[in-house]
Amino acid sequence: MKNKIYAVIMAGGGGTRFWPLGRKARPKQFLKVTGDDTLLGETISRILPIIPMEQIFIVTNVNQVHLVEEAVPEGFCKENILPEPAARNTAACIGYAAKEIIRRYGDGLMCILASDHHIGAPEAFRNTVLNALETAEETDALVTIGIRPTFPSTGYGYIQFDAADADADKAHKVKQFVEKPDLETAKAYIESGDFAWNSGMFFWRAGAIMREFDALLPDISGLLAQIYEAEDRRKALFDIYPTIPSISVDYGIMERAKNVMVLTGDFKWDDVGSFTAYADLNEQDAAGNTVVGKACLLDSKNNICVGNEERLLALIGVENLTVVDGGNAILVCPTERLQEVRAMVDKLSKEGFEEYV
Amino acid sequence: MKNKIYAVIMAGGGGTRFWPLGRKARPKQFLKVTGDDTLLGETISRILPIIPMEQIFIVTNVNQVHLVEEAVPEGFCKENILPEPAARNTAACIGYAAKEIIRRYGDGLMCILASDHHIGAPEAFRNTVLNALETAEETDALVTIGIRPTFPSTGYGYIQFDAADADADKAHKVKQFVEKPDLETAKAYIESGDFAWNSGMFFWRAGAIMREFDALLPDISGLLAQIYEAEDRRKALFDIYPTIPSISVDYGIMERAKNVMVLTGDFKWDDVGSFTAYADLNEQDAAGNTVVGKACLLDSKNNICVGNEERLLALIGVENLTVVDGGNAILVCPTERLQEVRAMVDKLSKEGFEEYV
Repeated sequence: MKNKIYAVIMAGGGGTRFWPLGRKARPKQFLKVTGDDTLLGETISRILPIIPMEQIFIVTNVNQVHLVEEAVPEGFCKENILPEPAARNTAACIGYAAKEIIRRYGDGLMCILASDHHIGAPEAFRNTVLNALETAEETDALVTIGIRPTFPSTGYGYIQFDAADADADKAHKVKQFVEKPDLETAKAYIESGDFAWNSGMFFWRAGAIMREFDALLPDISGLLAQIYEAEDRRKALFDIYPTIPSISVDYGIMERAKNVMVLTGDFKWDDVGSFTAYADLNEQDAAGNTVVGKACLLDSKNNICVGNEERLLALIGVENLTVVDGGNAILVCPTERLQEVRAMVDKLSKEGFEEYV
Repeated sequence: MKNKIYAVIMAGGGGTRFWPLGRKARPKQFLKVTGDDTLLGETISRILPIIPMEQIFIVTNVNQVHLVEEAVPEGFCKENILPEPAARNTAACIGYAAKEIIRRYGDGLMCILASDHHIGAPEAFRNTVLNALETAEETDALVTIGIRPTFPSTGYGYIQFDAADADADKAHKVKQFVEKPDLETAKAYIESGDFAWNSGMFFWRAGAIMREFDALLPDISGLLAQIYEAEDRRKALFDIYPTIPSISVDYGIMERAKNVMVLTGDFKWDDVGSFTAYADLNEQDAAGNTVVGKACLLDSKNNICVGNEERLLALIGVENLTVVDGGNAILVCPTERLQEVRAMVDKLSKEGFEEYV
């Protein structure tokens, strides 16, 4: 490729779906879900064979910089950790990274990745990424990766593409982005063959995406310009960034831009959206239980136990429960009601248990 | 009373029904079930208004002496903690205490109490105890307290007494001791009016109980005599005590002796036999949940949460569960299956989790 490639890993997410393991102060990208490394650390390792460390950027909340510093490999350049003074959604985050790349290097190909996804086949993933970057360079389009669906998920957004091109390795024109469907719609999507899961990974030239910001999100573009034209850029960042409209890049740009392409990826991918990911990404015992850490189960079926090496979880005669040892808080919840963890976190805040949130 | 009174608190019990809160190394008499003090500490406080501290003895396993020392009030005399080199059941324990009292004081009235029971009305309890001691002194009988049953418990043994004497405050002749009954039998006992729960508290002169040992348990009597006649009594205790036959005083003496009396007690009494005692001895919230320590419950009913002040238990959408934070182990078990905690402890030992037992 003619352009240099810069990875931009978005690691500023918050969210409470992993409480009590994840906290306000330690969101899921900093958790070790599948092994010895954090999801952020795995994201870096996965991309390192094709993008040198000094070309990897991490955008994160200013309060999480220390967690990023813990998670990155030795030798990772601290200047490549870009702090956000406030969480302003993915459009602001991506615009910020694009402006920084343009400031430092004039231009370059961007490979934008989430920091909290699991990918099962890193080699296949890297091939698809290289393919996407080539497409972005050749066509100057906005390129994304769509995951070939393996089941009618109602938890992911979908991308419909033009399947007329018979070659599956090639990029397809995107027809539309659609929100999370209900089960029936999801089933229809799967059968149609021209829908893929929206992975939230993006590939484009920094100059190309800024051109789209100018056209489609001129407010954001203007505020970013103010930051980058200021004499004291750091002060301007802290003053202006929190005022940037909060909008996702999907909604603000991808759904409205004209030249958008998608490459379908066949690797195993999981956005690690709740504790059920622990069941998806780890082996089960003969009774269908998933055990991370130390646990002893007696006559118990289909439970998810997320513990650690210090403390033992002992379950007797229970089914379909998720039990999580989060250090100073323990969660017990039927797996099918895990979406209510958010309500628990709200309740804790209201009832004076703020220190556990 | 002519004789001095000596309390003997039996604190050598083991048992696993309170795992993971109670451990092999810290049985339930050393747990704080109802408040700020251990069950053993509460037992001492309860009796102190009628028996001076220097006349209170505690028999315990030699491995638990340090736990007793932590639990007793300031100024408690260490010589009044009698170590058992091995657990040999209640007959050995009581014979040992009787011999020690005879050695030190020639004779005396014994008030033998369990260390791990809860009693709701200490004033009424003390009156019954004084009444029992007077009966023991006047009649030279073996006297016990039977608790007037409030429901047809299948978890307690029963005492049938001669109800011909109309005065309920007086001692009744014991007809028979019976083992834990099934529910139908328990109901019949309650209706009959002449059955009471066997509380395991005993009152007699030291000389009177040794006379019964000589007659009914001559083996044990002989071995205790060997210990107390030895030149090096401590060495003899460690050599001989572990060889004493393991038999309960109920089975070995009470069921076979001729002159046995029972006083019925009307105070609230609970042998704290499992975590359900936490529900019996603490208030419930509007949804029927019992909470000890810190917990937050969302749409959850009739659970028993036994936690502590450091760690939070968070329950979502569960019913009739018992969740116990035992420090380095957490138990999750339907309340109606708590009897399987014993099986869990066995499983832990077998599967190499010995450090958690």
